[in-house]
Amino acid sequence: MKNTITVLCYPYVCCVQAQVLYDFTAEPGNNELTVQEGEILTLTKQNVGSGWVEARNSRGNVGLVPEDYIEVKTILIISFVFDFTSLFRDFDIHRSLVFQSVILLLSVMVILCHMAVGSVYSFDEEWDDDSDDGKSTGGYGGSQVEESGTMQRGGAHSTMKLSLNKFPGFSKTPNPEVYLLTKHISKGDDRLPVYTGEVGPVWLYPQIQLDCVVADPKKGSKMYGLKSYIEYQITPNTTNRPVNHRYKHFDWLYERLVEKFACALPIPCLPDKQVTGRFEEEFIKMRMERLQGWMSRMCRHPVISNSDVFQLFLNYRDEKEWKLGKRKAEKDEIVGVKIFSNIDPELPELDPAQVEQKYEMYSQFTRSMDNSVKELLAVGHLHWKRCTGPLQKEYRQIGKAFQNLSSVFNTSAYPREYTLTEALTATGKTYEEIAEIVAGQPKKDLHFLMETNHEYKGLLGCFPDTIAVHKAAIDKVKEADHLVVMNKISQQDKLIMEKNLSTMSYALQAEMNHFHSNRIYDYNRLLQFYLEEQVKFYETIAEKLKKALGQYTTM
Amino acid sequence: MKNTITVLCYPYVCCVQAQVLYDFTAEPGNNELTVQEGEILTLTKQNVGSGWVEARNSRGNVGLVPEDYIEVKTILIISFVFDFTSLFRDFDIHRSLVFQSVILLLSVMVILCHMAVGSVYSFDEEWDDDSDDGKSTGGYGGSQVEESGTMQRGGAHSTMKLSLNKFPGFSKTPNPEVYLLTKHISKGDDRLPVYTGEVGPVWLYPQIQLDCVVADPKKGSKMYGLKSYIEYQITPNTTNRPVNHRYKHFDWLYERLVEKFACALPIPCLPDKQVTGRFEEEFIKMRMERLQGWMSRMCRHPVISNSDVFQLFLNYRDEKEWKLGKRKAEKDEIVGVKIFSNIDPELPELDPAQVEQKYEMYSQFTRSMDNSVKELLAVGHLHWKRCTGPLQKEYRQIGKAFQNLSSVFNTSAYPREYTLTEALTATGKTYEEIAEIVAGQPKKDLHFLMETNHEYKGLLGCFPDTIAVHKAAIDKVKEADHLVVMNKISQQDKLIMEKNLSTMSYALQAEMNHFHSNRIYDYNRLLQFYLEEQVKFYETIAEKLKKALGQYTTM
Repeated sequence: MKNTITVLCYPYVCCVQAQVLYDFTAEPGNNELTVQEGEILTLTKQNVGSGWVEARNSRGNVGLVPEDYIEVKTILIISFVFDFTSLFRDFDIHRSLVFQSVILLLSVMVILCHMAVGSVYSFDEEWDDDSDDGKSTGGYGGSQVEESGTMQRGGAHSTMKLSLNKFPGFSKTPNPEVYLLTKHISKGDDRLPVYTGEVGPVWLYPQIQLDCVVADPKKGSKMYGLKSYIEYQITPNTTNRPVNHRYKHFDWLYERLVEKFACALPIPCLPDKQVTGRFEEEFIKMRMERLQGWMSRMCRHPVISNSDVFQLFLNYRDEKEWKLGKRKAEKDEIVGVKIFSNIDPELPELDPAQVEQKYEMYSQFTRSMDNSVKELLAVGHLHWKRCTGPLQKEYRQIGKAFQNLSSVFNTSAYPREYTLTEALTATGKTYEEIAEIVAGQPKKDLHFLMETNHEYKGLLGCFPDTIAVHKAAIDKVKEADHLVVMNKISQQDKLIMEKNLSTMSYALQAEMNHFHSNRIYDYNRLLQFYLEEQVKFYETIAEKLKKALGQYTTM
Repeated sequence: MKNTITVLCYPYVCCVQAQVLYDFTAEPGNNELTVQEGEILTLTKQNVGSGWVEARNSRGNVGLVPEDYIEVKTILIISFVFDFTSLFRDFDIHRSLVFQSVILLLSVMVILCHMAVGSVYSFDEEWDDDSDDGKSTGGYGGSQVEESGTMQRGGAHSTMKLSLNKFPGFSKTPNPEVYLLTKHISKGDDRLPVYTGEVGPVWLYPQIQLDCVVADPKKGSKMYGLKSYIEYQITPNTTNRPVNHRYKHFDWLYERLVEKFACALPIPCLPDKQVTGRFEEEFIKMRMERLQGWMSRMCRHPVISNSDVFQLFLNYRDEKEWKLGKRKAEKDEIVGVKIFSNIDPELPELDPAQVEQKYEMYSQFTRSMDNSVKELLAVGHLHWKRCTGPLQKEYRQIGKAFQNLSSVFNTSAYPREYTLTEALTATGKTYEEIAEIVAGQPKKDLHFLMETNHEYKGLLGCFPDTIAVHKAAIDKVKEADHLVVMNKISQQDKLIMEKNLSTMSYALQAEMNHFHSNRIYDYNRLLQFYLEEQVKFYETIAEKLKKALGQYTTM
């Protein structure tokens, strides 16, 4: 009773093709692919996320295309070779049972094929590591590049890397115990005072706000031209003397700031590394814009902007000073939770219960704002696509339809045609202009709305980690009574812990107030800019239509 | 060697369901169904055409919904009962062959099931026959109702029914021979003169242009209330005395005009009969609007408006006069090609070659314009759907996103929040208003553009039939030389034919010039109206955004 079933299954996925439904113009520097309606593409990655796919055109160029702009036409060539003859060689079991087994087997095969096809779709994401700069010292390279998208894509932004063993001795959330049990006296230069302002506890803001200009990107090379890189010029308003930095230096700065401050201050990520097109002019411009945004935000922060490492970055005079400063910064011991020992609130000690309540509120607020910002990014993305895709196409079609009608009228040989055909042609051309205005508008206003919200999404993503450190501190203080009873700590220790928790709380309150003040400034400016541009947009179209209207004869 | 395979296959199609993607508000009187995003519908007809499906909602209401607004989720319950045991009862043929057969059979069954499902989709279209008015005298009822769509749907409009044996003795295109061979002298009242105007041959236009107002639709009933109908009041500007007519009377008038004039003049179809909702207020309003449009076009035509039957329709004093007039009109013998015997061009005879060239031009022009009008209708339909569907939804989402952000900001407990949250809420509400403005705009301007173009589509659809009669006449005249040689007609006959052809040509030229003059007037007025409304639309939005902008603090 031997029952051998030989099933040879060769699933070959030949190619996954797609037809382009709408023209799409790549935004420079985002690894996007410009495609035209009707074009056939070969999909190279389907799971890049946030509504994008990677595709190759007939000229071999590869890039990202919005998935709504294409219609996938999967072509699968799957060959099966069944060897059923052996099945019936010793046919002595109940036949209908055999049949059922075979049908079951067929089903399994279909599932297997699906899985095989699925596996073709689930490529691992591979990203260019910006390797001209060598591997960065930090261990976050892999996740730093998790987002390939432009600001419009609304993809997830990486949070600070507090959890990646940045702080020796802590496994996940940095443990605030080290700090809580120490009695500190804040010293001269490193002291970070917290005052009571009109809005509550605030950092000490400098008289003149630091700012800088990131400009003049230049291509440099090393290793006899084998490796090349871009160097940006950064000019602070304090010295007005430019310094040069490569992306990897920004990256180094970010690392230092996270190490030193992230327990107390959310440090937003640098603009994403880029997959390809590093030397494309517009990409460089875009990265520069984003580095400028990041630097401006850092400059605006009274604690960060005043730190040694940040000052070194902006003010170093020569290579020697830079190298020495770097070494010093890397050896800085006041990192992680120790930063709180520099905080000096000149304010009455807070009750732990009060502190906890505030943290809940901050948690809730940043989470809600994060959701709201994501909602805005999602609809912004949708609207961007609508404007540059179907809407542009439709206005072009309306324009064409009017012009075609005008052309037909022109062939009538009727002597009183001229004024109408001229006016109709002008109307058609106006709608074609409107098509371009509509498609071009997102870059003028929505772009700024998306960039700012994207920046906030990044910043908001850092808060949970920062707040977690504070919540852990509360838990430690709550345990204190028990620890006193157990004789693990003294009553004195407990009082120190409560004092230190109060200090931490003032730091977070000052930071939240800094955040709120910036947020109100940023969104006020953003919305005004957006609405101004939108008003101009609608007025421009109305003006153009009025002009077209003027061409008709009044009857 | 008996080999019985019992395959019982019961394909049950339980229901074809669809989920609504966007809100859709039914246009009254078009048998449309108002649906809301997320609602589940049961499709009752999938092939109603022009991008519409018939569906039933959960409350049992049935109506048309744009197919782009729904996502079909077909639920099929297909049960198979296989009886394979008998297959192996006398298992003495090569087993793998049996297996192959079974697999083939399975494939066939899948195909059969598909066919079964297909048949469920292919309902015959059934239309309500407006039967309260009884069957119309003409034989075109069936094709008259071929279009269920509103003006926006861009479906095919029926052409004149010259081909339906309206003219006894002619099988397809009415044969102009009867007319061509007769020597006529146009008599007094029926005489239709053609003059030379500035633009070429023209009809004789009356001093005062006839016009009428179709208004005041009233529900009437007959057969002791068993049958009900709508009666419209038509008031001509000549007598200023209203007469009442039901749709069936308009229909009768249309029939008479086609019989009498369609060889010389394109008679546009009446507005379509309606599937359901006959007594719905808005439907009646819409039909009235369209009857008004049709009547105005007829009034504007110097030949039609001056005809006995048209005058009767507008001026009858009592039931007796109407009935007598009706009988007289139905007995009118000057119908079909005989109408040309009334034409009296006071102009030099034309050369047949010239005539032919002109006809080619008219043919070409009307065909091109027909295409162009259809193009405009198609893109107009698309734009209408975009405005009332995805665009409205998107602007609502933008509005919601701004308002949500404002709500979150409001929870910050930060003391300087108020101005921004107020302004953000106002911005959000403005975008919600814009959503409604965008969705409501098509009814304000695009509607008129669609209605006019739809009317022209109907009119243009009549030209091929009219021109065909003229082309047939040319062919007859071309044969004349041969017929003279064959002694079938005399030389005198041939000269008469050429004279008559020239007369026919003048009629068509006058008609084309009438068409051109009207067309220029209509499109000039239409485009001006459309552009005026569009300007207002964009200006309104700009104004609203400006107001929202004013709420932000300048910093």
